[in-house]
Amino acid sequence: MHPLDQATALASDSCGGLRGRTSDAYWNFNGPFGGVTAATLMRAVFERADRLGDPCSITVNFTAAIARGAFDVAVRSIRTGRSVQHWYVELRQADVVAANATIVCARRAPTWTHQPAKPPPAPPPHSIELMRHDGPNAFVSQFEFRFVEGSLERLPSFDGRLRSARTSLWLDNAVPRPWDFIGLTTFCDLFFGRIFHVQGTVFPAATVSMTAYFHIDSDGLSALGDGPLLGVADANTFVAGFFDQTAQLWSTDGRLLATTTQIVSYRA
Amino acid sequence: MHPLDQATALASDSCGGLRGRTSDAYWNFNGPFGGVTAATLMRAVFERADRLGDPCSITVNFTAAIARGAFDVAVRSIRTGRSVQHWYVELRQADVVAANATIVCARRAPTWTHQPAKPPPAPPPHSIELMRHDGPNAFVSQFEFRFVEGSLERLPSFDGRLRSARTSLWLDNAVPRPWDFIGLTTFCDLFFGRIFHVQGTVFPAATVSMTAYFHIDSDGLSALGDGPLLGVADANTFVAGFFDQTAQLWSTDGRLLATTTQIVSYRA
Repeated sequence: MHPLDQATALASDSCGGLRGRTSDAYWNFNGPFGGVTAATLMRAVFERADRLGDPCSITVNFTAAIARGAFDVAVRSIRTGRSVQHWYVELRQADVVAANATIVCARRAPTWTHQPAKPPPAPPPHSIELMRHDGPNAFVSQFEFRFVEGSLERLPSFDGRLRSARTSLWLDNAVPRPWDFIGLTTFCDLFFGRIFHVQGTVFPAATVSMTAYFHIDSDGLSALGDGPLLGVADANTFVAGFFDQTAQLWSTDGRLLATTTQIVSYRA
Repeated sequence: MHPLDQATALASDSCGGLRGRTSDAYWNFNGPFGGVTAATLMRAVFERADRLGDPCSITVNFTAAIARGAFDVAVRSIRTGRSVQHWYVELRQADVVAANATIVCARRAPTWTHQPAKPPPAPPPHSIELMRHDGPNAFVSQFEFRFVEGSLERLPSFDGRLRSARTSLWLDNAVPRPWDFIGLTTFCDLFFGRIFHVQGTVFPAATVSMTAYFHIDSDGLSALGDGPLLGVADANTFVAGFFDQTAQLWSTDGRLLATTTQIVSYRA
C-alpha cells in the first residue's frame, strides 16, 4: 500500500461514521501536512457509493490543531441535483472539529472547450536537480521538488531582502503513485508558503482555508499514469497576519489539472 | 435603507433561526444574483454578537435553485480559537439546502506587510462611459460597470471568434453605499461569467462555488467611504461544462481588498 493511501485510509466505525489516524510519515511542523488532511476528507466522499460523477471542487478549513492519533470523519449529503452534488465533511478529535470541507462532485459532459491559460516554461523534470531535504518535517521526504523558477532558501531569519513570491517546479511522489483525486487533492497543498520564498526563511505558518477546482475527471487522471506534475504558485498580498497564495497544477503535456488558492496565517 | 441592505436583511424567527426573503431588485436569469446570496450568508455571521474580529474568507456553494420568496438561514459555530473563528451557514427553502457557506473570521494584528500584486492600469472611473443595460436581469441595474479592458458584447450567439477572458473595470453601487463586508462580499460575485466575454454572448450559466479572501478589516473598509472599486478578472480553463474564474478588487488608491475565485457550470 502506498504511504499516501495508508495516511488517508478510513475505516467504517460501528455508528455509521468513519475513523482515521494521523501519519507520522506526513508530519509537518505542528501537525499532519494539510494536503493529507484535505485528501482524507476527499476520500470520505470519493469512496461513497452514492457519489455522482467526479470531484469538481473542494474547500477545506483547518479549524484546529490535529494531534497525533485517531480522528473521526462524518460525511453529510447536502444536495444532489441532476449533474451536481454537494457534500459537507467534518473531521473531529474528541469534541473539537479540527477540519471541515465542502466538496462538489459533478457529472461532466464533453462540450465546447477552451484553455486560455498556458503552462509556465520548464525543462524536463529529470534535467533539474532534486531539492535536498534535511529539515525536520517528515512530509517533505514523501515528495520530490525540482525548482524551475525560484527555490526554497533556508536562511536562519529574514534578511530584509524581498524575493519573488512566484515559483514554478516539478512535483512528484517519492514513491511513484498513479494519479487520482486523492493524489491531486494532496498536491494542491504541496506549494511551500509564499512567505518562505519572499523572506528566504522557513518557519511555522498555518493554512486557514484552501480551495481547489479540478479540471479533469477520473478517466483523464488514470490516463496520466504516474510521474511529475508541473506546478506554479504566487501570492498577491501579505497583510496583518494573513497572506493568500494561488497555484496551478499541469500535466506534462500542458493540460491544466487543478487551480487552487489558500489563505495562510503568519507571524513575522 | 439601501436596496442591498433590504435584499440581505435577516430577521430572527421564534426557533432561534433567521429568516430572509429574495429581492426582485437583484434578480438574475433564474434566481437571485449570487453575490446577494453570498452577502446574506455573510450577514448571518457578521451580525453575530460572538463574532471574533472580521471576515477573512468565505466559500459559498450554490446548491440548488432559489425560488422567489422566503428562506431560512441557520448558523453553526464550528470552532473559535485565539484569533481565528470558523462558521458554517445554511440557507434552506422548505427541506432543500439551496446554499451553504463556510466563513472564517479573524482578529488581525499589524505586522510585516508586503503587497507584490499591482492593480491594473486604469483611467479615472468618471472618464469612462457607463455600460448601458437593457437586458432582462434586474440586478445589473443596481450597479455601475465601466470597462477599462474588455467589454460585454451581446451577440445573439457565439460567432466562433475567441475573445480574451480578461477584463478590468470600475464597479460601483448605482445607489451609493459605504463599504463594508456585505458590500465587498457582494462585489466578489460581480464579474460577469468569463464565458460571456470569451464568446461575446450572454446566456444562463450557474456559479457552483465561490471563494473570497478579504485583505482588509472593518476599519479599513469604513475609511474608504463609498465609491468605485477597480476589478480585474480572468479565467484559466473551460472544460466539460465547467470553467473557473479569478478576480481581484482594488481600492482607488491601489490597495488589494479582496481576491476571489469561482467555478461555474455552462452548456455551450
